[in-house]
Amino acid sequence: MNDTLMKNKLAEYGAETLKGIYAFIPKKEPQRYLYELISDYPTRGGKGFRPGLCIASCKAFGGSFEDAKYSAVALEMLHNAFLIHDDVEDESHYRRNRPTLHESNNRAIAINVGDAMNALSLQPLWYNRRLLGEKLAQQIFMEVQQMVMDTTEGQALELGWRKDNRCDLTETHYLQMILKKTCWYTCIRPLRIGALIGSKGTVDPDRFNKLGYFMGAAFQIQDDILNLVGEESAYGKEIGGDIMEGKRTLMLIDLIAKCAPTERKRIQKFLALPIRERTEANAREILNWMHRYEAITCAKETSQYLAGAALKEFYTHFSSLEDTEDKAFLESLILYMINRRY
Amino acid sequence: MNDTLMKNKLAEYGAETLKGIYAFIPKKEPQRYLYELISDYPTRGGKGFRPGLCIASCKAFGGSFEDAKYSAVALEMLHNAFLIHDDVEDESHYRRNRPTLHESNNRAIAINVGDAMNALSLQPLWYNRRLLGEKLAQQIFMEVQQMVMDTTEGQALELGWRKDNRCDLTETHYLQMILKKTCWYTCIRPLRIGALIGSKGTVDPDRFNKLGYFMGAAFQIQDDILNLVGEESAYGKEIGGDIMEGKRTLMLIDLIAKCAPTERKRIQKFLALPIRERTEANAREILNWMHRYEAITCAKETSQYLAGAALKEFYTHFSSLEDTEDKAFLESLILYMINRRY
Repeated sequence: MNDTLMKNKLAEYGAETLKGIYAFIPKKEPQRYLYELISDYPTRGGKGFRPGLCIASCKAFGGSFEDAKYSAVALEMLHNAFLIHDDVEDESHYRRNRPTLHESNNRAIAINVGDAMNALSLQPLWYNRRLLGEKLAQQIFMEVQQMVMDTTEGQALELGWRKDNRCDLTETHYLQMILKKTCWYTCIRPLRIGALIGSKGTVDPDRFNKLGYFMGAAFQIQDDILNLVGEESAYGKEIGGDIMEGKRTLMLIDLIAKCAPTERKRIQKFLALPIRERTEANAREILNWMHRYEAITCAKETSQYLAGAALKEFYTHFSSLEDTEDKAFLESLILYMINRRY
Repeated sequence: MNDTLMKNKLAEYGAETLKGIYAFIPKKEPQRYLYELISDYPTRGGKGFRPGLCIASCKAFGGSFEDAKYSAVALEMLHNAFLIHDDVEDESHYRRNRPTLHESNNRAIAINVGDAMNALSLQPLWYNRRLLGEKLAQQIFMEVQQMVMDTTEGQALELGWRKDNRCDLTETHYLQMILKKTCWYTCIRPLRIGALIGSKGTVDPDRFNKLGYFMGAAFQIQDDILNLVGEESAYGKEIGGDIMEGKRTLMLIDLIAKCAPTERKRIQKFLALPIRERTEANAREILNWMHRYEAITCAKETSQYLAGAALKEFYTHFSSLEDTEDKAFLESLILYMINRRY
């Protein structure tokens, strides 16, 4: 499927999912500091990768859009709730080209909106019971429950590294962390859930674990690279924000391993400061070193390698399926996620 | 039931619930910045009012401790998760005589631990299916789900008032807010859930709404009074902390309505400052005014009035039940919650 067709379909699924989110937001009070804010991040227009993967996977396995819609809504709600808390935790300034929720309101309100959104995401999963039957709905509920636990585990790893100012991490640590923090909820669970629904629970969902891991890792590394070298408006967050936040990206880990001891000390000192006391000049210096020591080039190579592994997995598990429009869409979507430039 | 017997029983149910919480905490990594911290607040020893009410209500309606245990565990987990986020939102310093979780670790880690704990609380509710059957377990799940939504709504009201620096609130506003923020999750839902389990779903849970509202409101007002005039070590939080946090207590609302315009302006100015810029001298001044304008005395009277209404409700709905040990315990527990001095 060509790029334009794929993007149109992704946008279509995204728009339907957004409508679904709106339908689940209570129309009662308090609107101003709660329910209106639940729709804030979703309305800013994410790319909708998670609902896209879930719906495409469902359809590729013989299901319909309708079958997957509540699950897609729950996944997208949880993603946005996670972003709200993640932005508070990272003290991020921008999300999707606008001030983060805690900056446009305040931290307390943002945390509470995230909590409400997490709780609200259970509602579409509840609706799954009538749509898919008790057994399959319960299976999907467990998938989502495990997904949320994995994400908080990955987040705990990353936050712990920052708190301890760990400067001895390796690529293996990094990959373990993003498997937990990114891969499960961005790729593996959406694919598993979609396939479970589409196949009416007959497919073994474990077959997507490697595919989701490889594509999720390629996706995250690429996302982190864009944060360093992307264009602000296309990327939607402040460029270099990850360095300011002390995020343990593959590039930072690689740089710390390769640079001179005096440079390592400067990086360590920078990372030991509270976020608000770090200077942009220092962040720029670290970015320059990342270029000089080819940490970005190396990360790109790792991402490409993982993308290749993801494709191999895709063809292994999907080539036996009938060639449908949604299988072609899924293939294009995966290619897009692992190769995207913005 | 006398006070000592009641407290022993409450402690016994609390200890069993704590054991239940431990059993649900995963033993795997990451321990240090996630799973160990989930047990932190519960281990500090709360009074266990919510599990106590739930278990007593279950037994008073003919059920066993075993029948209610998973629900009690879920309620106590959610309570502690709520406290973690509430402490971050209020920038509180102490919880149960020790630094709050975000102060002993950091804010990011505390938010994430609260998220994990919220998600983990679904697990005991899931176990209810085998214990109580699909139908009753689902009913309780919905009770809990609605409870969490109500709590975030109440929290949104309160946080919104602070953000807008509202100084025009009335007792009615206050009571609406604590109905949402406190009463549902501290009293109404534990009583409802217990009675549903004990009666195998045959009792109409709405009959406890008024009782839970009256006792929850009496409890919360008393709790806020203790924050102003209690003893630090017995209360476990810093005395006067609520004034520093700008919490819209009944006493503050009453004071603002009664005081002189110049005093009102000073209070408004104090509340407009970011929390960290408020001085203790100003907070003390406001506390003195609360005494002078009898805002504390008035709040005590309101609390007593609500406590009386709660007792009337209790006797209306429980007098027809058989006189069992757990009915006597429930009566003593309710009396204790609405009359406590520490």
